[in-house]
Amino acid sequence: MSDNRVVVYKGPGEVAVESIDYPRLELPTDVVDGLKIKRKAPHAAILKIVTTNICGSDQHMVRGRTTAPVGQTLGHEITGEVVEVGDDVLFANVGDICSVPFNIACGRCRMCDEGKTGVCLNVNPARPGAAYGYVDMGGWVGGQAEYVMVPFADFNLLRFPDRDQALDKILDLTMLSDIFPTGYHGAVTAGVTTGSTVYVAGAGPVGLAAAHAAQLLGASAVVVGDMIGSRLQQARSFGCETVDLSAGGTLPEQLEQLLGEPVVDAAIDAVGFEARGHGRDAGEAPATVLNSIMEATRVGGGLGIPGLYVTGDPGAVDDHAKEGTLGVRIGLGWAKSHTFATGQCPVKQYNRQLMNAILSGRARIAEAVNATTISLDDAPRGYREFDGGASQKFVIDPHGSVAA
Amino acid sequence: MSDNRVVVYKGPGEVAVESIDYPRLELPTDVVDGLKIKRKAPHAAILKIVTTNICGSDQHMVRGRTTAPVGQTLGHEITGEVVEVGDDVLFANVGDICSVPFNIACGRCRMCDEGKTGVCLNVNPARPGAAYGYVDMGGWVGGQAEYVMVPFADFNLLRFPDRDQALDKILDLTMLSDIFPTGYHGAVTAGVTTGSTVYVAGAGPVGLAAAHAAQLLGASAVVVGDMIGSRLQQARSFGCETVDLSAGGTLPEQLEQLLGEPVVDAAIDAVGFEARGHGRDAGEAPATVLNSIMEATRVGGGLGIPGLYVTGDPGAVDDHAKEGTLGVRIGLGWAKSHTFATGQCPVKQYNRQLMNAILSGRARIAEAVNATTISLDDAPRGYREFDGGASQKFVIDPHGSVAA
Amino acid sequence: MSDNRVVVYKGPGEVAVESIDYPRLELPTDVVDGLKIKRKAPHAAILKIVTTNICGSDQHMVRGRTTAPVGQTLGHEITGEVVEVGDDVLFANVGDICSVPFNIACGRCRMCDEGKTGVCLNVNPARPGAAYGYVDMGGWVGGQAEYVMVPFADFNLLRFPDRDQALDKILDLTMLSDIFPTGYHGAVTAGVTTGSTVYVAGAGPVGLAAAHAAQLLGASAVVVGDMIGSRLQQARSFGCETVDLSAGGTLPEQLEQLLGEPVVDAAIDAVGFEARGHGRDAGEAPATVLNSIMEATRVGGGLGIPGLYVTGDPGAVDDHAKEGTLGVRIGLGWAKSHTFATGQCPVKQYNRQLMNAILSGRARIAEAVNATTISLDDAPRGYREFDGGASQKFVIDPHGSVAA
Amino acid sequence: MSDNRVVVYKGPGEVAVESIDYPRLELPTDVVDGLKIKRKAPHAAILKIVTTNICGSDQHMVRGRTTAPVGQTLGHEITGEVVEVGDDVLFANVGDICSVPFNIACGRCRMCDEGKTGVCLNVNPARPGAAYGYVDMGGWVGGQAEYVMVPFADFNLLRFPDRDQALDKILDLTMLSDIFPTGYHGAVTAGVTTGSTVYVAGAGPVGLAAAHAAQLLGASAVVVGDMIGSRLQQARSFGCETVDLSAGGTLPEQLEQLLGEPVVDAAIDAVGFEARGHGRDAGEAPATVLNSIMEATRVGGGLGIPGLYVTGDPGAVDDHAKEGTLGVRIGLGWAKSHTFATGQCPVKQYNRQLMNAILSGRARIAEAVNATTISLDDAPRGYREFDGGASQKFVIDPHGSVAA
Repeated sequence: MSDNRVVVYKGPGEVAVESIDYPRLELPTDVVDGLKIKRKAPHAAILKIVTTNICGSDQHMVRGRTTAPVGQTLGHEITGEVVEVGDDVLFANVGDICSVPFNIACGRCRMCDEGKTGVCLNVNPARPGAAYGYVDMGGWVGGQAEYVMVPFADFNLLRFPDRDQALDKILDLTMLSDIFPTGYHGAVTAGVTTGSTVYVAGAGPVGLAAAHAAQLLGASAVVVGDMIGSRLQQARSFGCETVDLSAGGTLPEQLEQLLGEPVVDAAIDAVGFEARGHGRDAGEAPATVLNSIMEATRVGGGLGIPGLYVTGDPGAVDDHAKEGTLGVRIGLGWAKSHTFATGQCPVKQYNRQLMNAILSGRARIAEAVNATTISLDDAPRGYREFDGGASQKFVIDPHGSVAA
Repeated sequence: MSDNRVVVYKGPGEVAVESIDYPRLELPTDVVDGLKIKRKAPHAAILKIVTTNICGSDQHMVRGRTTAPVGQTLGHEITGEVVEVGDDVLFANVGDICSVPFNIACGRCRMCDEGKTGVCLNVNPARPGAAYGYVDMGGWVGGQAEYVMVPFADFNLLRFPDRDQALDKILDLTMLSDIFPTGYHGAVTAGVTTGSTVYVAGAGPVGLAAAHAAQLLGASAVVVGDMIGSRLQQARSFGCETVDLSAGGTLPEQLEQLLGEPVVDAAIDAVGFEARGHGRDAGEAPATVLNSIMEATRVGGGLGIPGLYVTGDPGAVDDHAKEGTLGVRIGLGWAKSHTFATGQCPVKQYNRQLMNAILSGRARIAEAVNATTISLDDAPRGYREFDGGASQKFVIDPHGSVAA
Repeated sequence: MSDNRVVVYKGPGEVAVESIDYPRLELPTDVVDGLKIKRKAPHAAILKIVTTNICGSDQHMVRGRTTAPVGQTLGHEITGEVVEVGDDVLFANVGDICSVPFNIACGRCRMCDEGKTGVCLNVNPARPGAAYGYVDMGGWVGGQAEYVMVPFADFNLLRFPDRDQALDKILDLTMLSDIFPTGYHGAVTAGVTTGSTVYVAGAGPVGLAAAHAAQLLGASAVVVGDMIGSRLQQARSFGCETVDLSAGGTLPEQLEQLLGEPVVDAAIDAVGFEARGHGRDAGEAPATVLNSIMEATRVGGGLGIPGLYVTGDPGAVDDHAKEGTLGVRIGLGWAKSHTFATGQCPVKQYNRQLMNAILSGRARIAEAVNATTISLDDAPRGYREFDGGASQKFVIDPHGSVAA
Repeated sequence: MSDNRVVVYKGPGEVAVESIDYPRLELPTDVVDGLKIKRKAPHAAILKIVTTNICGSDQHMVRGRTTAPVGQTLGHEITGEVVEVGDDVLFANVGDICSVPFNIACGRCRMCDEGKTGVCLNVNPARPGAAYGYVDMGGWVGGQAEYVMVPFADFNLLRFPDRDQALDKILDLTMLSDIFPTGYHGAVTAGVTTGSTVYVAGAGPVGLAAAHAAQLLGASAVVVGDMIGSRLQQARSFGCETVDLSAGGTLPEQLEQLLGEPVVDAAIDAVGFEARGHGRDAGEAPATVLNSIMEATRVGGGLGIPGLYVTGDPGAVDDHAKEGTLGVRIGLGWAKSHTFATGQCPVKQYNRQLMNAILSGRARIAEAVNATTISLDDAPRGYREFDGGASQKFVIDPHGSVAA
C-alpha cells in the first residue's frame, strides 16, 4: 500500500523522497496512546497536495540540531485539494482547495477556544502544540508528500472560495500555511501599525514575510537586517530598507543613518536560536538577535519573536544553551519597558484575512519571498540550496499542479 | 533657607534625616542643562507631605547596589497637600490633598501621549523616565521629606475628592503613589481576569499589592511564594494561598497540591534582580524568579514583571549580571508561547480607578501590605527593619497628620 | 418512543409539559434541509438534564409577542450529564456533568473562529445564530426537558471538573448556560473595570447577573434601577445600590444623590425592547431604557446592551417598532462619544472563567438572582410567577437531582 | 489692534472675511467665567497660519442648521507656524510648523488622561469637548484666519520634524488637523484591518479620508457610496469601488455585485444627520445612513460613526429629529451583534502616526480628497462650491505659503 511519497530525514545534511502508506482517516499512534482518544478519525480529511514548502524550521532537523530520528517524515506547509472526508466532516467538500495551518489543533480545547491553536492540548502527548512532519510534535506524518491526512478538518482547513482563482494565486496562497501568518504575527505582536518604523532581524522567508506584513499594516519604514547580500537584495526588491550586519557600524548607527534616529517603534526577531554574532567571522551567539532588537527598539516598544527558541538544543555552544537558557539583556528590556511576545504563530488567527489580502491583490507575498517551484524529486536540492543561504522560498509541487 | 528635612543616603546601610532648602518652583539643574528647557516652572506645585513610604527599590540604593552618591535624597512614594502653585497650575488648588505618581512625567511628549509615563522623554537627560529621590533618574529631590516640589502638577497630581475622607483612608491612599498601581500593573499585564489562578513571586509590599490587585481583578485563587514566614503569614491574612520556597518541593509540585494542577493562568514577578535561589542557603541568582514563573505558568499565559531589572548592577554575582544580562530560559518561554511585560508601572494609567476602589471600600490595600506609620525621624529604623524582612510597609508621617 | 418530557408553548400565556421522542444523534430537519448538511450527527451528545432554567426571553414567546407556533418546545438554559456520545465526540465522556451554552455553535465557521458563537453560520438556515427551544432559531428541541441533544458536543459542552463539587454548587453553575455570561458580557462590553461606577437598568435575573458581574470586575459602586420593589430589594441583598424608577426624580438626580454625580462610568441595558416608560402608569416605550442609559453615562463611556431588541415584534406599539425601528437619542450618544455593544452574549467566551469563579467561591450568582428550584411539572407555575414579577430565578430540576 | 483677518458667519448661506484683534495669550471669557480658571494663558502659543481647511461641519453652521450667531468666527482645521509662546510652553518653539487638532484639549483632566481629547472637561463650560470657531464649543476664535491662539500648546501642537519637508507635503499634512484622523478613527472603530471589506457611506472629504484610511489599514476592498457622480469619480481615482446611491438597486444588491456577497466586514458612516434618503428626489432622512450600514454589515461587524449627529437641530424634519432622536433600526443591529462607535475623533490618538505615514509617502491623503488651495479672500467662494457638492477639499492659504 505504498501509495504515497514523502520527504524523509536521512541523517545530518541528508533528505530523500521515499514511499510510504497512503494516509488513512486515523490518528497517529502516539496521540491515540498518549492522550487515550479514539484512533478512528471521522473528523479527518485526506488532501492531495497542491503545494508544500520547505521551511527554515525543517532545516533545524536536517542540520542534525534536534533529536529527530532518521526516517522522520518532513513538511508542515501544506496546501491541497480535499479528496476524501470522514463522516463528521460537514463543511469541507471533496474538490475544495484549502490551506492547512502548520499547527495542528483540535478546535475543542481551552487553548483553541482562546484562539491559541499553537498550543492545542489535544494533539500531542509530549506537550501542547503539534505540527505535521516534525520531531517531538505528535508523530503526525509530514506533508512534503503527495497526500496527507488532516485531522479536525472542518476546523483546520481554510477553503479558498474559487478554484481557478486559487490556482492562479497559488504561489501566494501557499504561504498561508506558515510563513505569511508567522511573519504577520511577529509584526502584530510587536505592535506595528500605521506609520510605524520597523526593524526585522533576518531576511530569510519569515523575515521577508514579516517585512511585507509590516508594510500591509501601514509601516512608514521597514528595515531588514541580515548578513547575506542576496537576501538583502531580495528585501530591497519590494521596498524595504536594509542593514548589512556583516559590514561595519552598529545596528543603531545604521538605523540612525536610514531613519534619522537610532531606534525603531517595533522590532521582530525572525532568526531565533541559531543566530550568529554580527560580523563575518562571528560564531553562533544564540541571544544576539534578541539582545540587538532590544537595543534597536524605542522605549515602550514591542518585540515580536516568531523566531524559534527551543528547550533542548543538543548542538548548542554551551550547557545553558543546550537547555534553552540564554544570556538575555533583560535589564535593558526592563529599563525600556519592552514587551516580548514569543511562541508559534496561531495560524488560524490570521490566515483568512491574509487570504483575502492575497486574493484582492493587496498582498504579494510570493514576490516578497521569491517563491520558486520545484518538483517533489527535487526536494533534496531545495533543502541544500536553502541551507546555503539562497534568497528563495522553495515550493514543492508534487503533482505538477502549478502553472509554469 | 534650610526649611525642609529629607531622608538622605549616607553610604551602604546608612540613611539619615538632614535639612535642605525649601523647594522652589524650578526644575533641577540636571534637567535644565541636559534637556535645555526653562528652569522656571510655572507648571509646578509645592506639597506639604502627608505621607511618604519606604519602597523596596530604595533599598537597592541603601544596600549600596547602585551608583547612588552619598547625599542622594530619597523618597518617591508621596502623598501631600498643595501649599503653593505656579502660574500655570490651573486645576490643582492650595489645600487639595493629592497622590503623586512616583514616575515624573511631563504630559506633553509622545510617551505621555501614549500613556507611557514611566518612560517620559522630558524629565531626565540620562534616559527616558524619572522619579523623585532616585539615582540616575533626573536629579529630582526626594520626597521622604516635609515638602516636595512636583512639576507638571496639573498632569501629575491625583486629587482626592474629599479632604476628610482622604485623611480617613490615608494609609490606603498612600499606596497609590507606587506599590498599589505597580502590583496592579503586574496583574493586568499578566492577564489576570475573572476566574484566573495567579502566582505572585515575592511577598514584599509589591507582591502583596499584586496579590490584592489580582483579587480585585476577580482571580479565583492567588498563590504567593516567598522564603520569609512572616511575609507569607501576611499574605494569608487577606485570603491568599502561600508557597514556602525555603521548604522542600518544587514550585510546580506545591502549586499542584494547592490547585490540583502544577501551573497557573498568570504569574507576576514581584522580586526582580536581587532574587535568591530557592532553598535556605542559596545565594543570589538573579534570573531565578523569572525562570520559575515560566515554569509555573500555563501555555499561552502572561508574565507580568514589575520587579526591577537593571542595566547596571556593580555588586552583581558575575560580569554578565553586572550589565543586566541574565541566564533566561527563553527556550521554555517560547515553547509555552508566553508574553513578557516589563518596566516601571505607568502609575497614571491606574491610580484614579484604584483610588475609587479604595474610597468605596472595595480595595483594602493598607491591610494587605500591613501599613505601619512612623515619624520622619524614625525613617532610619524603618529602613533597617524593612531590609531585615519585616512584613510591614513603612509609611512616614512627617507632620503627624495620620490619626493614631 | 415518547421517552422524553418537555415544556411546550400552548398559546399566549400558556405552557404545558408534554411527552416527545427521546433525542437522537441527528440534526433538526430545518438545519439539514436549509444548510444541506448531513443529518447524522456523530459530533452530538445526549444529556440527561440536571437543571434547566426559565429565562426572561422565554417569556417573549409565552406572552405571544413572537411568531412562535403552538407546540414550540422551550428551554435553552441547560446543565446536564452526558449519557450518550457520537463517534466523533472525543473529549466529552459519559458521566460528565456539563454546562451547555444557550447559543448553539458549530466551532467550525468564521464566526466561531472569531469567538462570535452567538452568530454561528452553520446552525440556523434562517439567519446566523441558534438556540435550543426558540422560535426562528433553527428548530432545535428545547431543553426544559428530561433529555436533550447537544450538537458539536466537544465544542459546546463545558465540563465541570468534579462531579460532587458540581452538584454541590449546581444552583450557581446552572447560571453559566445563559444569564451569568450574559450579564458579564453586558458589563465587559460596557467597559466595567476596577473602580467603575455602574448603572444596571432592570433588576430581573439578567440585570442582577450583570450587577454581580460588575462587582466581580471590581466596580466601586453598582446601582440597579427597576420599578418592582421586591426586585430592588433582591439587588440590595448582595450589596447593590438601587433606584426606584416608579418613584419621583429623574435617573440622573437619583444617581447624583447616591454617587455625588449624575452619571456613571458604564451602563448596562438588561431590559430590552419590552421596556416601559418610567413612572407607575407609563405604557410600553421600547427605547426608554436605551435612551436613559445614554443620559446616565459619562462622556466617553460604554453601553452594554444584552437586553434583547428584535427585528420583528408583531405586538409592538407602532409600525416602526413592529420592525425594530425605535426612536433612539443617537444625537445625545454621539455628543457623548458613547460606544454601544449589542447582541447575544457569546457564552463560550466567558463560561469557563465564570465557572472557575463559582467553584472557588468568588462568584455567588445563585444568591444574587435568588435561584429557586422547582420540578418539571411545576414549570407552568414558574412561568406564571416569573411573568408576574417574582424576584426569583426558577430552576427546573427534572430528575430531582438538586439536594434540598 | 485689528491685526488679524478671519472668516465669519454672516447669516444663512453667507460668510465674509473680517478684521479682528490679533490673538493674545489668554483664554476666552466664556471659558474663564464658566470654568473659573485663570485668564492668563502661559501655556498658549500664537500661530501664523500656514493652511486652514473648510470642513463639512462648518457647513452645518453656514446653512443655518445651528444656533450659531451672526459674527461667529469659523475654522478648526489649522496648520501653522509658532510665532509666540507663553512662559510655560517648553517644547514648542518659535519657528516650528505644527498641526493643531481641531478638538481643543487641556491634557490635564480625566478624559485627556484616557486619550479622549474630544470630550475634554476643561475647555468648554457648556459641555465636554471644544473646538476653534464653532458654535457651542467654548467660544474659541476660529482659525480660518491669519493668526490663531492655541492653548495648552505643548499638549495640542504636533510638530513636524523638518520645515522644508513639511512645506513640501503641506497639502497632505493640513489634513491631520481633522479629516484624516477622523476618517481613520471611523475605520479603526469599525474594526477595519488587513483583508477587510469596507463600506464607506459618503464621498465627501471625511468619507474619502475614511476610504484612504481603510486602504492604509490593509482593507482588501473599499466601497464608497454617494449620490454625486463627481465625488464617486474622485473615490475611484485612488482605487476605491463605488456605489451610486441615486441609481436603482439596493445597497446590498450593489455590494453583492461588486464583492460577491451583500455585506462587508466593516462600515463607516461619513455622512451624519443631514443624510438624505436614497434616490434622486428623496428628502432628508436623518437615520438613513445609519440604518443602511447596519443592513450592509456582516453579523458581528463594527460600525464606525464619525459622521456628526447632534442633540439640537432646529431645522430638522420633525420634532424628534430636532432633539436628535432618530428612528434607528436597533433591532436589526442587535440581531447582527453590531457594535456602534460614535463621537468626535480624538485627533491626538492618531495624528502622529498619520504624519509619519504622510512623510514617508505611504499616505497620500491630499490626492484622495482632492485638496485645492485658495486664498483667504476666496473663502466665501470655497464655502459656496463645497456646499454645491464640489469633489474638492478647500485649503485656505492665508499668507501665500503653499507653493504653486
